[in-house]
Amino acid sequence: MMSDVCVFAPVSPAAERLRYILGEDDDMPNPTLFTEMDTLQQDGDELEWKESARWVKFEEKVEDGGERWSKPHVSTLSLHSLFELRTCLQTGTVVLDLEGYSLPQIVDEIIERQIDEGMLSPDLREKISFVLLRKHRHQTKKPIHRSLADMGKASGGGARECPSALWSRMAIGIPIHIILRNKFMKKIPRDAEASNVLVGEVDFLDKPFVAFVRLAQATTLGGLTEVPVPTRFLFILLGPTGKAKSYNQIGRAIATLMVDDLFSDVAYKARDREDLIAGIDEFLDEVIVLPPGEWDPKIRIEPPKKVPTADKRKSVHSLNELGQPNGTAGGSGGHSEDEEMPVAHELGEELAHTGRFCGGLFLDMKRKLPWFPSDFYEGFHIQSISAVLFIYLGCITNAITFGGLLGDATDNYQGVMESFLGTALSGTVFCMFSGQPLIILSSTGPILIFEKLLFEFSKNNGIDYMELRLWIGIHSCIQCFLLVATDASYIIKYMTRFTEEGFSSLISFIFISDAIKKMMGSFKYYPINTDFKPDYVTAYKCECLAPDPSESILVPTDNTSNLDWSQLSKKECVKYGGSLVGNTCKYVPDLALMSFILFFGTYSMTVSLKKFKFSRYFPTKLRKLISDFSIFMAIMTFVGLDRLIGLKTPKLIVPTEFKPTRPDRGWIVLPFGKNPWWVYLASFVPALLVTILIFMDQQISAVIVNRKENKLRKGCGYHLDLFWVGVLMAVCSFLGLPWYVAATVISIAHIDSLKMESESSAPGEQPQFLGVREQRLTGILVFVLTGVSIFLAPVLQFIPMPVLYGVFLYMGVASLSGIQFWERIKLYMMPSKYQPDFPFLRHVPLRRVHLFTLVQIICLAVLWVLKSTVLAILFPVMILGLLVVRKMLDMVFSQHDLAWIDDILPGKDKKKDKKKKGDKDDTKKKDKKKGRADDSKDKVRNVKIYLGRSLPARQIHPLIHRLHKHETSAWQIYADTHTWAPDFVLK
Amino acid sequence: MMSDVCVFAPVSPAAERLRYILGEDDDMPNPTLFTEMDTLQQDGDELEWKESARWVKFEEKVEDGGERWSKPHVSTLSLHSLFELRTCLQTGTVVLDLEGYSLPQIVDEIIERQIDEGMLSPDLREKISFVLLRKHRHQTKKPIHRSLADMGKASGGGARECPSALWSRMAIGIPIHIILRNKFMKKIPRDAEASNVLVGEVDFLDKPFVAFVRLAQATTLGGLTEVPVPTRFLFILLGPTGKAKSYNQIGRAIATLMVDDLFSDVAYKARDREDLIAGIDEFLDEVIVLPPGEWDPKIRIEPPKKVPTADKRKSVHSLNELGQPNGTAGGSGGHSEDEEMPVAHELGEELAHTGRFCGGLFLDMKRKLPWFPSDFYEGFHIQSISAVLFIYLGCITNAITFGGLLGDATDNYQGVMESFLGTALSGTVFCMFSGQPLIILSSTGPILIFEKLLFEFSKNNGIDYMELRLWIGIHSCIQCFLLVATDASYIIKYMTRFTEEGFSSLISFIFISDAIKKMMGSFKYYPINTDFKPDYVTAYKCECLAPDPSESILVPTDNTSNLDWSQLSKKECVKYGGSLVGNTCKYVPDLALMSFILFFGTYSMTVSLKKFKFSRYFPTKLRKLISDFSIFMAIMTFVGLDRLIGLKTPKLIVPTEFKPTRPDRGWIVLPFGKNPWWVYLASFVPALLVTILIFMDQQISAVIVNRKENKLRKGCGYHLDLFWVGVLMAVCSFLGLPWYVAATVISIAHIDSLKMESESSAPGEQPQFLGVREQRLTGILVFVLTGVSIFLAPVLQFIPMPVLYGVFLYMGVASLSGIQFWERIKLYMMPSKYQPDFPFLRHVPLRRVHLFTLVQIICLAVLWVLKSTVLAILFPVMILGLLVVRKMLDMVFSQHDLAWIDDILPGKDKKKDKKKKGDKDDTKKKDKKKGRADDSKDKVRNVKIYLGRSLPARQIHPLIHRLHKHETSAWQIYADTHTWAPDFVLK
Repeated sequence: MMSDVCVFAPVSPAAERLRYILGEDDDMPNPTLFTEMDTLQQDGDELEWKESARWVKFEEKVEDGGERWSKPHVSTLSLHSLFELRTCLQTGTVVLDLEGYSLPQIVDEIIERQIDEGMLSPDLREKISFVLLRKHRHQTKKPIHRSLADMGKASGGGARECPSALWSRMAIGIPIHIILRNKFMKKIPRDAEASNVLVGEVDFLDKPFVAFVRLAQATTLGGLTEVPVPTRFLFILLGPTGKAKSYNQIGRAIATLMVDDLFSDVAYKARDREDLIAGIDEFLDEVIVLPPGEWDPKIRIEPPKKVPTADKRKSVHSLNELGQPNGTAGGSGGHSEDEEMPVAHELGEELAHTGRFCGGLFLDMKRKLPWFPSDFYEGFHIQSISAVLFIYLGCITNAITFGGLLGDATDNYQGVMESFLGTALSGTVFCMFSGQPLIILSSTGPILIFEKLLFEFSKNNGIDYMELRLWIGIHSCIQCFLLVATDASYIIKYMTRFTEEGFSSLISFIFISDAIKKMMGSFKYYPINTDFKPDYVTAYKCECLAPDPSESILVPTDNTSNLDWSQLSKKECVKYGGSLVGNTCKYVPDLALMSFILFFGTYSMTVSLKKFKFSRYFPTKLRKLISDFSIFMAIMTFVGLDRLIGLKTPKLIVPTEFKPTRPDRGWIVLPFGKNPWWVYLASFVPALLVTILIFMDQQISAVIVNRKENKLRKGCGYHLDLFWVGVLMAVCSFLGLPWYVAATVISIAHIDSLKMESESSAPGEQPQFLGVREQRLTGILVFVLTGVSIFLAPVLQFIPMPVLYGVFLYMGVASLSGIQFWERIKLYMMPSKYQPDFPFLRHVPLRRVHLFTLVQIICLAVLWVLKSTVLAILFPVMILGLLVVRKMLDMVFSQHDLAWIDDILPGKDKKKDKKKKGDKDDTKKKDKKKGRADDSKDKVRNVKIYLGRSLPARQIHPLIHRLHKHETSAWQIYADTHTWAPDFVLK
Repeated sequence: MMSDVCVFAPVSPAAERLRYILGEDDDMPNPTLFTEMDTLQQDGDELEWKESARWVKFEEKVEDGGERWSKPHVSTLSLHSLFELRTCLQTGTVVLDLEGYSLPQIVDEIIERQIDEGMLSPDLREKISFVLLRKHRHQTKKPIHRSLADMGKASGGGARECPSALWSRMAIGIPIHIILRNKFMKKIPRDAEASNVLVGEVDFLDKPFVAFVRLAQATTLGGLTEVPVPTRFLFILLGPTGKAKSYNQIGRAIATLMVDDLFSDVAYKARDREDLIAGIDEFLDEVIVLPPGEWDPKIRIEPPKKVPTADKRKSVHSLNELGQPNGTAGGSGGHSEDEEMPVAHELGEELAHTGRFCGGLFLDMKRKLPWFPSDFYEGFHIQSISAVLFIYLGCITNAITFGGLLGDATDNYQGVMESFLGTALSGTVFCMFSGQPLIILSSTGPILIFEKLLFEFSKNNGIDYMELRLWIGIHSCIQCFLLVATDASYIIKYMTRFTEEGFSSLISFIFISDAIKKMMGSFKYYPINTDFKPDYVTAYKCECLAPDPSESILVPTDNTSNLDWSQLSKKECVKYGGSLVGNTCKYVPDLALMSFILFFGTYSMTVSLKKFKFSRYFPTKLRKLISDFSIFMAIMTFVGLDRLIGLKTPKLIVPTEFKPTRPDRGWIVLPFGKNPWWVYLASFVPALLVTILIFMDQQISAVIVNRKENKLRKGCGYHLDLFWVGVLMAVCSFLGLPWYVAATVISIAHIDSLKMESESSAPGEQPQFLGVREQRLTGILVFVLTGVSIFLAPVLQFIPMPVLYGVFLYMGVASLSGIQFWERIKLYMMPSKYQPDFPFLRHVPLRRVHLFTLVQIICLAVLWVLKSTVLAILFPVMILGLLVVRKMLDMVFSQHDLAWIDDILPGKDKKKDKKKKGDKDDTKKKDKKKGRADDSKDKVRNVKIYLGRSLPARQIHPLIHRLHKHETSAWQIYADTHTWAPDFVLK
């Protein structure tokens, strides 16, 4: 459709006119227009102007009986009303740049002009002036307390009384403070100007009184407008009685035109009546037509998510582009492809291979330094609080879980205490200085497995674990520095959506499966006695019996004989060699089921509260707050429930004393003395593995965080990130703390909790995702809090572990959403007619999409299986395998398909085809390209044809002749002749 | 907008033409048109016609790269293409009623004509014929197994190969069986005919070749059309190269026109080219215009829920209505109010007061009898199975619950056994013979309370309960007959939405609160030991200790001394006077929490599965099945889970032996012998209470079931219903079974589970709610099943009670949905801008709506409180109170408001105002009415003006003159002159 406009429109006299006036000076944008339409109403014996609709981009109507604003909707017009309006503007008075300072004066001027032109009989002067100066009654939003108060005074004649009670009477010159209270003002830009449309029927006129006025200066004309916005335009239509509906439609048409970006420009710059008419003609050229049989005109169309920008539309008419009629610019005006091709995955200069020593690192620092102050002050926002709470809970849960596992794996050389301390230290340093402070560091699975293997190796070979680990850390740190210095992060460029999504899906699945596994664990720790029969409660017991003296020889404890065995607890009983006898010994009542309820409840409450943002209840701000704090609220609720029921569910227990978990180690690991010298060198080899592991883990998470979709504006810093990870490796090794690396799921959660949306500007406009609150404050706070958690133990001990597992489950599931891979998996289960309208589905055959998804699923399945074996330590290396698979996919899929489903690998840029001689494989691709090229050539040719040709001699129709000679618009002739030309004009 | 059409259009020459041709004979509707658009494509070296879009009411496009159908959407056109099309039809060949039998012959004919008319050079004959007879390739839906198979053979040049693999090559004369497989056929009506649009660019033409052909008979032209539908219309547009986009748009325009109800009529009946042009002009008159700045033309608009019917649009042009130009019919053509006023609650003749003895009853029987056979055979449908299962489970749960409560209340004179038997008997009889077999009978709360009071009274006064009850039943039966004979159900007319929704909400709340109460009860029956510490399991026990001999004197049982007290169960221990000592005695582990999980799980799974119908996954049929059987699946799942875990949750236990619960009563109650004679007479008084109770309960439920929204077509039978309830009262009294009356919630559930939706006809059309599967079979089956449940005990015993409580909760919540009262309560929590677009909100101020809701809430609160006291027995009388409150609301609310929020009471008909002199109170109302009258007068006047007036002398424009003289359409002149007239035509 856009293309048609380009092809045909430029030659119409209307377009040429517009090109001229719009081209004049484009540097000063015109103010936004707010349009209000008032209709003349009889209220008892009095006439008054009642607001009936308003426009800030979209239309809001005053509901006839409802005394309320309708939802903002797209104005649906009829062709009728547009043509009638056109005639009105042609026959009525058009006053441009009137010096007006008050409504009476303006009205006088208009009336005088009409009388002068002989369009109005002088004896109607008073009457018209009287009508036009009637007071204006605006539809205002009433504060709720008042409407409740109103309920009390309901009465028999209620329907009669309410309107006068509801409409605040804003006669000219009403106190401004009442108007200022209007919340609606916030929706109108500060520099906005108003256009007022007044339509009505009066009994003393026998032909219509039409005036279009542009004031030289926007002026506040008393209570003319609902909001204190100065009026610039005024459209008045008074006509004989009996046509109210028609006048109304004309009013809606001009109001809609006034808020149209293009027409409002025309209105501001019009030199005469003809310019305005040309504006309408241009508008008509671009309207979208719905067939009457397929659409019900009564339906109010919700504003679309996005509308074409005015610039795009204006560019067609811009002097620069189409000024030279015979130029080649025709093609540039109308990009008529349905969709633009997806832009290749652009990591831009941030990952350019500088070739200089530490070139990338310095660039990173140069890029991030200017943002450093704002990284702090931009953190002050209510949203940060919820983000901190959410991520903090995730972090300590992680710290405790990994701490516990590490403690098991390393015989408490690194335990929960070290885990807390390490998390706090690494996290704080990283968030403070890194290139991408939105990344959250954490222990990860591969590191845990590495530590486990390393500890076993050291124990079996008599090597000191902590010292060995220190040296590995040092080597790894140096290797990281080398990678940084050589800009090795460059290879991240080869990570396309395929790799990225594969990795993050895998991590999400691990999160989900871990959460469920841990939950299921509680059914193992607290077995349920399913044979329990309430009536036989007397038969259930568990007794501790003293060991059989004959067998207790092996356990010669002195004091066992003095024990009252029946008073011993289960643990003591086992400790002293007693035997537990009874049918309840191995069962624990209620805890498993309670854990399940807490787990599932936390998860589902979080999910529901998150969705609450999209419900209709409560004001937007409150809903957003609820949604932001959903996790916190869910945790609080279920902690409360747990307290209320009072069962001994497993709780979060953080270490309360600041000392190493293992008493025989200190806070500093010394580098020398415990192992032979060659170990210091040989540890280079395992360090290499750790380096790869860290590099991959870190950088893929960083790629995911830095995704284009997140709209980060402060840039990333892969080299800087890696530098600090390396530094922290060494530091942590010296202190005997675990190693930390970017954690995908928590980082995504961090980003998600910091997303910003625009406060929607015009009513009905969809809020836009603006980006992420990029700052260092939340991260730092999270880790400082983690550090001081040791002192928060009294508070934290109320949190049941199943609640935290529920949070884990939520994190895993939430990080899956929005992943295209996941959307594509869902496609398998959808009949094609129900599939969402994804762009890639329009361009890539479903079969190919499914195949691509299948490859990804297989890759993930393989990785999942490998991960479950001891090969897990090679996990990061396997990610490299994904890169290879992706590379091979280049052979299976066309670059066109890949551009839509995945990204193009560097060096495969399909847009700029440098070699002109195509090889056979690419015929199809070339065909496509040819098609596109033809298309744009085509456009240019069309424009040429139009601009160059004279009208065909064969059709010398007097009308066309006239049209051509006088440059009259065809709309002109049309409107003159058509029976639609409004009755009252023809009279 | 509609009004404009009415006001202006009728006079245009186009409209007059149409009025003439459409008015000819309207008795034979034209077939539905299926339109397919094929575009000429180069495939390798071959030219072929490739299907690019199709229309069955809405447009489906072949996605460029996706090789798939887009979703059906509203065709958005540009004004351009419509005008270009208009020019094409004017200049091209139009052949109407061509005798065509094959495509080559038709093509030849067209070409010959063009050559004859000098429009085509004879040497192009072969070329054009060659192009037009190229084979057609249709986009077909591929079976899924094939597309999976395709995945295997992915290859490097994949993108190249797939199209040829995907498009089934349907050259002319391809085997019909391949085509028949097309599932799409089902979407096209049986009698449909096709219109084929062929557009393409060729290099040998220098001006376009346009032809519009209507065949005399619809003919299958080989593989021209995707589906085996005979072709009636053919539109061909071949043009010079370089304008493919433009041709495409013209093709879309004619295709859209062809599926337009009005234009397709015109196309069928057109006598000449001018008629077709007039059809386009009429179409243009009615199009809906979207402003370019407020809408993105790329958005595909989803088909609306409802489109204006063609009849409504046609009526404007119908001969009957506007045939006499000076008649008064103008007003009838265009009801232009935004919404029609809600129709008053019309119970119609079904509740007319006949004045004759049993007049209503006979009318009921007369009405229902013809449907009797269909009441059975219409029950055979898969949906009935799920309905039976659902309602059956509801019924037996109810029977057990009430049976248990009745047993308690009446010392087992009526117990679970009687409850089952009574339910089965009454239900079967009622469903077999009643006026409204969708109503489900059940015990209700008020009856229960009445029985309880009656039993206590008899016991205290030495009166035989069963005999007294029999006499009350007999009296009540007679009273019911009296009510039937006098058509007393007439008063139901006074039950408006206010009463009806109040009542059903209350019952729903009772359901919900009962379900939750019962669930919470399990926390009382199975207390949780919250102090349990797993480690001290050895300390928990519960022992049965023998009673202290010194105190056991009072219980001189012989065998207690021989008892092994420690082996006794809890119950036995208590029975024999032992004391339970220990810290676990009063606790039951796991059962409470498990019950909660089952309860909540059943409820939420049912809710989620019900919603599954609206998801995108799986084909519609499967989804509908899942949704229909959601309750069954949820029950099965949680029964399975319960079995899996194996806890002793409370199960459904039905009596297994067929005998009265109380051994000392038989199956027949004898009327005489046990009570003094005056009791037989005096029982008239309590019977009166029972009658009122039954009457109200029964008839309100019936009103709710017979609601207009349910679209019942077999009518209702209030009198007949009451008759059978009376009969069953007597029968049950004789048999000593409980009394039964219509149960609101289960009846609503019954209706909901039997709702029918149209298989959507055209792709994209929303399925319409067609009505309810009205039949007697499901009801009868439910109650027969209830009767044989005694033998189903082995199966039913696996169902845990909490699962059934979950079903109850679902029933209660589901019956709240769709109640306007409930929607209005939600409005309290919504800021007005987020409120749904309810019609009443457009017409009634929110304040008044809130006030009305508040009154309802207060009424319900009062009823709720009363219900909880002993006054509950007066409950049905209190419903009468609601009627009084509603009557009083007439004084607070205007009839206009009430018409929107509630209904108008009989005798308050606001539409026909018989007295013309209005009283002061009604000024507002009158104003409105006057407005409406004016409006329609207005329309008539306009039509008169248009038809009567000659064109104004002042504007003697040659064009208008010409227009008027020759009756040329204005569009004609417009299209001739405007620069939009397509380039290739002008050449």
